[in-house]
Amino acid sequence: MVKRQKKHKSFFEKLRQRINIIIHGVNTPAGKIFDIMLLGVILLSVLLVLLETVENLDNQYHDILVLAEWVITIFFTIEYILRIISTRKPLKYLFSFYGIIDLISILPMYLSFFIPSTKILSVVRALRLLRLFRILNLGNFTGQASELKLAINASRTKITVFVYFIFIISILLGAVMYVVESKESGFTSIPTSIYWCIVTLTTVGYGDIAPITSLGKAIASFIMILGYGIIAVPTGIVTAQIANSKSRRKLFAPNCPNCKSQPLSDSAKYCHNCGTNLT
Amino acid sequence: MVKRQKKHKSFFEKLRQRINIIIHGVNTPAGKIFDIMLLGVILLSVLLVLLETVENLDNQYHDILVLAEWVITIFFTIEYILRIISTRKPLKYLFSFYGIIDLISILPMYLSFFIPSTKILSVVRALRLLRLFRILNLGNFTGQASELKLAINASRTKITVFVYFIFIISILLGAVMYVVESKESGFTSIPTSIYWCIVTLTTVGYGDIAPITSLGKAIASFIMILGYGIIAVPTGIVTAQIANSKSRRKLFAPNCPNCKSQPLSDSAKYCHNCGTNLT
Amino acid sequence: MVKRQKKHKSFFEKLRQRINIIIHGVNTPAGKIFDIMLLGVILLSVLLVLLETVENLDNQYHDILVLAEWVITIFFTIEYILRIISTRKPLKYLFSFYGIIDLISILPMYLSFFIPSTKILSVVRALRLLRLFRILNLGNFTGQASELKLAINASRTKITVFVYFIFIISILLGAVMYVVESKESGFTSIPTSIYWCIVTLTTVGYGDIAPITSLGKAIASFIMILGYGIIAVPTGIVTAQIANSKSRRKLFAPNCPNCKSQPLSDSAKYCHNCGTNLT
Amino acid sequence: MVKRQKKHKSFFEKLRQRINIIIHGVNTPAGKIFDIMLLGVILLSVLLVLLETVENLDNQYHDILVLAEWVITIFFTIEYILRIISTRKPLKYLFSFYGIIDLISILPMYLSFFIPSTKILSVVRALRLLRLFRILNLGNFTGQASELKLAINASRTKITVFVYFIFIISILLGAVMYVVESKESGFTSIPTSIYWCIVTLTTVGYGDIAPITSLGKAIASFIMILGYGIIAVPTGIVTAQIANSKSRRKLFAPNCPNCKSQPLSDSAKYCHNCGTNLT
Repeated sequence: MVKRQKKHKSFFEKLRQRINIIIHGVNTPAGKIFDIMLLGVILLSVLLVLLETVENLDNQYHDILVLAEWVITIFFTIEYILRIISTRKPLKYLFSFYGIIDLISILPMYLSFFIPSTKILSVVRALRLLRLFRILNLGNFTGQASELKLAINASRTKITVFVYFIFIISILLGAVMYVVESKESGFTSIPTSIYWCIVTLTTVGYGDIAPITSLGKAIASFIMILGYGIIAVPTGIVTAQIANSKSRRKLFAPNCPNCKSQPLSDSAKYCHNCGTNLT
Repeated sequence: MVKRQKKHKSFFEKLRQRINIIIHGVNTPAGKIFDIMLLGVILLSVLLVLLETVENLDNQYHDILVLAEWVITIFFTIEYILRIISTRKPLKYLFSFYGIIDLISILPMYLSFFIPSTKILSVVRALRLLRLFRILNLGNFTGQASELKLAINASRTKITVFVYFIFIISILLGAVMYVVESKESGFTSIPTSIYWCIVTLTTVGYGDIAPITSLGKAIASFIMILGYGIIAVPTGIVTAQIANSKSRRKLFAPNCPNCKSQPLSDSAKYCHNCGTNLT
Repeated sequence: MVKRQKKHKSFFEKLRQRINIIIHGVNTPAGKIFDIMLLGVILLSVLLVLLETVENLDNQYHDILVLAEWVITIFFTIEYILRIISTRKPLKYLFSFYGIIDLISILPMYLSFFIPSTKILSVVRALRLLRLFRILNLGNFTGQASELKLAINASRTKITVFVYFIFIISILLGAVMYVVESKESGFTSIPTSIYWCIVTLTTVGYGDIAPITSLGKAIASFIMILGYGIIAVPTGIVTAQIANSKSRRKLFAPNCPNCKSQPLSDSAKYCHNCGTNLT
Repeated sequence: MVKRQKKHKSFFEKLRQRINIIIHGVNTPAGKIFDIMLLGVILLSVLLVLLETVENLDNQYHDILVLAEWVITIFFTIEYILRIISTRKPLKYLFSFYGIIDLISILPMYLSFFIPSTKILSVVRALRLLRLFRILNLGNFTGQASELKLAINASRTKITVFVYFIFIISILLGAVMYVVESKESGFTSIPTSIYWCIVTLTTVGYGDIAPITSLGKAIASFIMILGYGIIAVPTGIVTAQIANSKSRRKLFAPNCPNCKSQPLSDSAKYCHNCGTNLT
């Protein structure tokens, strides 16, 4: 990141660069160790937020939990300030995805001075766990993630159309079940029936609401088999997309300069058709 | 839609055309704005029908809800009449898919004068939400939807065969569970057992009926693993279908200049249908 | 089926042939009508067996149900005898798949004279519903079914290996949950824990047994994500198999007699490579 | 395994070889019969461990169960010792996968003399059931298993990324539900909410915890549809992987006679690695 090396640098400039390398860098050993340690602290801080809501634990260790959370919040605050002053483009960091997450990870604790109930918002720290992908930047993890992302993006329109249909079907089937089933079995209103319909279509099936009448059970059976059948649709869409992106990946290699035939793999060294050396 | 322009038109004819463009058109800005507003009103009207069945809300706001519903119904009625008188082919609209839905969206409210319980049928208005696809007509939404539709249509026969098998299996396994399990665990009759079997095979699992005996649990485990295995079948069918239609669509090669048939592959040198040289 | 026409036939021989055509044939109108009517009677008879186990219905209409069942059983018996005497190869029919099903469809009713509890076995009549595929023989239903069958057969070994693994994993995880969870939450023995583990892995989730302790919930979460991940395996196997059999189907057309290149589709009339007429 | 035949062998050496062939061999009839019998005993021993935890059975047959378990443990111990002394490389066996499993299958019973509660650990014997794959070594079972293994291995990174995302989403959605839902509906702490979120996302749906409020139900519906959508992702990954490995396996073309690398397609005319003419 810091390519231009100046001959005469002030002490602060040197310090700034040193912090920059440790805090923003992932290629240097110091930067990597810092990032891994940071991830550990993030994990710990998320765990603290979660455990504070467990009544037994909170009753016993309330003071320790609060203290630990404040220590981590102050540590995150120092880290956040260092990130801003160490980079050459503080605005770019401030409005980046990670910059915004870093800010909203520390704000709730300070806000809780004035409005105690905002403390729970600290849970957004979980988003900082996404930093793992920055640490693994050099491996093939991000490649895999971006491949996933591409496949999901490409399938988005189809899945939106699909979900829209599901909603319309759920409204109609929910209304039918509301009419068929009595209020005793839990179908107290059409919105509740729609909720039940989604629970059934997605094969979750809590069982808090379940049909009692014969006709209701028959319709429910129909909805289940429908859900069973249509679960195939998003799966099919995404699978075809991934399989497709897989085969499209093979097309990155240029065609044979001699016979113009397409190579069968990116790693092919010789043309499969005329034997011309491709490298 | 209105291609032939007459030189001398009466005022009413002009008005009819103007309404036609707004109400039936989707390509003009006025038509698009009308359609989006209409979709908003439809959404609102569906919401009203749903909320009226929620007891607390209905008790508090009964009069407002009824009034709002009548306002919307009258608005829909006017729209329906305008649609009929503004088009040149009223019969075509009347018996089209959207025409029938538009009619049965307003009928239940008027019917509820005579038979109050028919009011709930207003929920069929949810089908009017399908108009969204008309608005998005020009985008790639409909292309995606029709691709989905094609894949589902092509898989229909296979999935029907599959569902028929599932039913026969469910009857047999349901009878087995009825014999094995006592009535205390909910298996009160074979139809109920079949219902349970479908609940289990589709991995919904409400838990309102669940085996108690060891043998029943063992058979249930077998049914679950069976269901787990056969869920793969419809998924496999649809996926293969989508992947297939995808690879068929991937063709960028132009159609045959002679017989206009689509080439089977981008690399085809001769038309598969008439033998014309494509290069 | 009866190809050789004798000039002089006895009355009985003629009758035998006539019955044969009606009862065994599917290509003649008379045979088709008989088969469709038979399917209706089978459906009715299965329905009767199911309804007899519903207490309310059985109390009210016991006599009618029993009478109807006897009428159908006698009808099936006559049909069975006619099938035997009308065919030239009675033994072949007797030991065929449908022959055995036809026999065990009528036996339970007669057996119920001596052992009343065997009546429930009449439910095997549901297997006679498979006759539908004989009726649809001429359409493309059976082709679809046999394609399904092929794909399932080819995947069988892989799915067996997979299920065997699932069982070993379930035993180990079941034992872990038995140790972790108290008996109050339903984990009363390792077999019960294994049952719960299968219920969870297959994402059925009845909820009759559910972890209470924190550690139990954590392990359960792990098992669920595991199940979520491995549901992909049988689906992947079957999908790949179906997609594979789909692309293999394209290979039935012979190669081009001129340039020996493989046609891109069975329906191609001209070689895509050299333009030779393939028909 | 024993290829070099010595002319003069002591009696013990001959016995050692004989035992080696029976116990370690799978190609000889004696070895195969021994392995099948051993698998039966392993199955029996696993069954015994399971049944001992069923209270009713243990109360009635406690002595028989304990006796049977000791008999089997001693049999396994003798087998273990014979395996060590009969092989030429005892250390290789001792530290092999099966060697370690064989040891930890017998240890818990002896340990239970000192610490009774360790007896339950005998359940690890279930891992010995994996020996089935050794017996079926010669068939195509292992090929299928290794193909499965390859596909799962190749998908591992993608699935890890996916599960990591699921965890972060579950933490955030769990916190949201904890805030929205009251403690009465079971959302007593954020960890419990996360547990519920995983139960819902994976479509297991026990129903021990279920939303009561309208907002909670709406968010739950969203989570279900999300889970329904993202179940497609691991399925898609594994399917694409299996389909991919399948098409790579379909190659019947022989390897390159020069560099021994496998051709990328049956139709390749030149080796992609060294350019040798393959035809």
